[in-house]
Amino acid sequence: MFKYELIKESKECKARLGKIHTPRGVIETPVFMPVGTKATVKAMTPEEMKELDAQIILSNTYHLYLRPGHELIKEAGGLHKFMNWEGPILTDSGGFQVFSLGALRRIREEGVEFRSHVDGSKHFISPEKSMEIQNYLGSDIMMAFDECTPYPASYEYVKQSMERTTRWARRCKEYHKNTDTQALFGIVQGGMYRDLRIESAKGITELDFPGYAIGGLSVGEPRELMCEVLDYTVDLLPKDKPRYLMGVGSPDYLFEAVERGIDMADCVLPTRLARHGAFMTSQGQITIKNAKYRNDFNPIDEECQCYTCRNYTRAYIRHLFAEKEILGARLATIHNLFFLINLMKRIRISIMEDNFINFKKNFYEKYGY
Amino acid sequence: MFKYELIKESKECKARLGKIHTPRGVIETPVFMPVGTKATVKAMTPEEMKELDAQIILSNTYHLYLRPGHELIKEAGGLHKFMNWEGPILTDSGGFQVFSLGALRRIREEGVEFRSHVDGSKHFISPEKSMEIQNYLGSDIMMAFDECTPYPASYEYVKQSMERTTRWARRCKEYHKNTDTQALFGIVQGGMYRDLRIESAKGITELDFPGYAIGGLSVGEPRELMCEVLDYTVDLLPKDKPRYLMGVGSPDYLFEAVERGIDMADCVLPTRLARHGAFMTSQGQITIKNAKYRNDFNPIDEECQCYTCRNYTRAYIRHLFAEKEILGARLATIHNLFFLINLMKRIRISIMEDNFINFKKNFYEKYGY
Repeated sequence: MFKYELIKESKECKARLGKIHTPRGVIETPVFMPVGTKATVKAMTPEEMKELDAQIILSNTYHLYLRPGHELIKEAGGLHKFMNWEGPILTDSGGFQVFSLGALRRIREEGVEFRSHVDGSKHFISPEKSMEIQNYLGSDIMMAFDECTPYPASYEYVKQSMERTTRWARRCKEYHKNTDTQALFGIVQGGMYRDLRIESAKGITELDFPGYAIGGLSVGEPRELMCEVLDYTVDLLPKDKPRYLMGVGSPDYLFEAVERGIDMADCVLPTRLARHGAFMTSQGQITIKNAKYRNDFNPIDEECQCYTCRNYTRAYIRHLFAEKEILGARLATIHNLFFLINLMKRIRISIMEDNFINFKKNFYEKYGY
Repeated sequence: MFKYELIKESKECKARLGKIHTPRGVIETPVFMPVGTKATVKAMTPEEMKELDAQIILSNTYHLYLRPGHELIKEAGGLHKFMNWEGPILTDSGGFQVFSLGALRRIREEGVEFRSHVDGSKHFISPEKSMEIQNYLGSDIMMAFDECTPYPASYEYVKQSMERTTRWARRCKEYHKNTDTQALFGIVQGGMYRDLRIESAKGITELDFPGYAIGGLSVGEPRELMCEVLDYTVDLLPKDKPRYLMGVGSPDYLFEAVERGIDMADCVLPTRLARHGAFMTSQGQITIKNAKYRNDFNPIDEECQCYTCRNYTRAYIRHLFAEKEILGARLATIHNLFFLINLMKRIRISIMEDNFINFKKNFYEKYGY
């Protein structure tokens, strides 16, 4: 049921076009996946996501496990039915959020013990438990339970963590049964250390997952370092499987990732920026609360064809943000998601036309990178 | 350009069917007017308001005068263009909000001096200034600058206030010139005192406005008292002009008002309740945060055909409110506005069929009044 189809490799770089076939539809890659942390892409309806041509959305296992609870979502008929979204859904493993809890969590070989950030209650998530939760949620793509190693981190720490992630990946694979309806992706870790990335990729790909993610990047390291790690890590992954770079959503990171052979990426960036009144535009990022937009009756982005830019002025949107009106967050979210989804469409076209490098160069110049 | 057309009078009571012809379209009455205080119906797009069959929306002069400022809205091409709403708009006079400022305002014959609730800055609104602001906004129906007398209030106070309101109404009429594009309504005051209502109605109707509002009701008095005042006040108004009861939006108040010959009403109630998770349903009001809805997979209202009820469960909407997700406020606003707009449609049908009293009785029984 789940299959990656390689359509074309760029003549200019490692960028590639593909299709991911899932039971809930085909995803054209490279793709940006908007995030709906708590079973809703913040401020948006599923119909609006569809109108934006969002091909797949991401949801967060940790949050849904705590509230409303994966049993409740199972009882509701699964996450798709619960939230009224018929397209593909990818769920993370919960690992990233659990490890982010810092003092609130304790890692053991068996799994991670932690206290809820909501009410302090005690919980335990193991690779098996993560699989169970994601099985209950019924996502189309599941992620193996891993540790996203922080940056910076010592060689020793990253090595131990990476080796445990590989052992956990095996346990995930052994636990997860309904592989026909839910594809389980493995995650390559290893921090910024080349030999550890090699070792991780070897261990994870040996388990033969239908797709692979690269974790532990875009965690605070300089962009050049991320690119360097991507350069050699992507080469360690099989060509016939999709490659997913976790946590990337700024235009430049997307370009750099695609150039290095990444097929999928996700980030809360566009939706979070939106709620703070920051808009991605063809001329760079703008903050609408700035006084100079007070009587600016132009659209957010002259070149943009989204609902927001077709119907509203900067002055009006600034007014909405000044008054903390919900419509402000809505219009901004629509715009930023449209911007990134449309950017990925144009990137796909540029790969098709072997014009990616030039397209990237022009985009960077206008955006101000 | 502006004209009220009486379509039918009920055989059962004073309820009546009509049409208000405006330059921006026809409004079927009795009508409920949703409120978009700050140039947006909270949480909604104009397209969504259209889909709900909202025939006219209300916006608040006081708020728009302070922010973003009526000059800015004029520069934007008027309120309709600014907020992307092509249908009719009614603006209040600003009086209600200014008088609500209490210690922050001082009433003189010339007008009202007040300090902004936002930044404490000093302002002065007179009848002429209110007209100027509303002219700048470009609303289709403007309201004369009045004092909405509080409840309770002494006979002496109400009498003086009412007489000033009449003098102000004359000044409004003298100032307002473009009567072809903007209809100016007079407002009858007089509190709960019959002879003052009679005197007010006489003074206001002598000025011959294209429509009349009844102010100073639904300000905290018992429902029976409101009904009593309505009973004799509506009779003081001409039959060939629309009658607008200000600040009414609960189902029972709408029924009582329509029964007594009211054609128009407005209130923030449905949208405000919505943002607090309170839903109007055919079985009465429910508060979705209640624990019993945790795993209730029924729609908010089995009998409702709105977008929310067609696509989402109580359990999901409860989850959205528990997580303070914007989509919760959106789904609730859609539902409550649909509920009231649909209720008014059914009320119009019941008047057409001379079945209003029976329809009201059945509704009250189910709603739990």
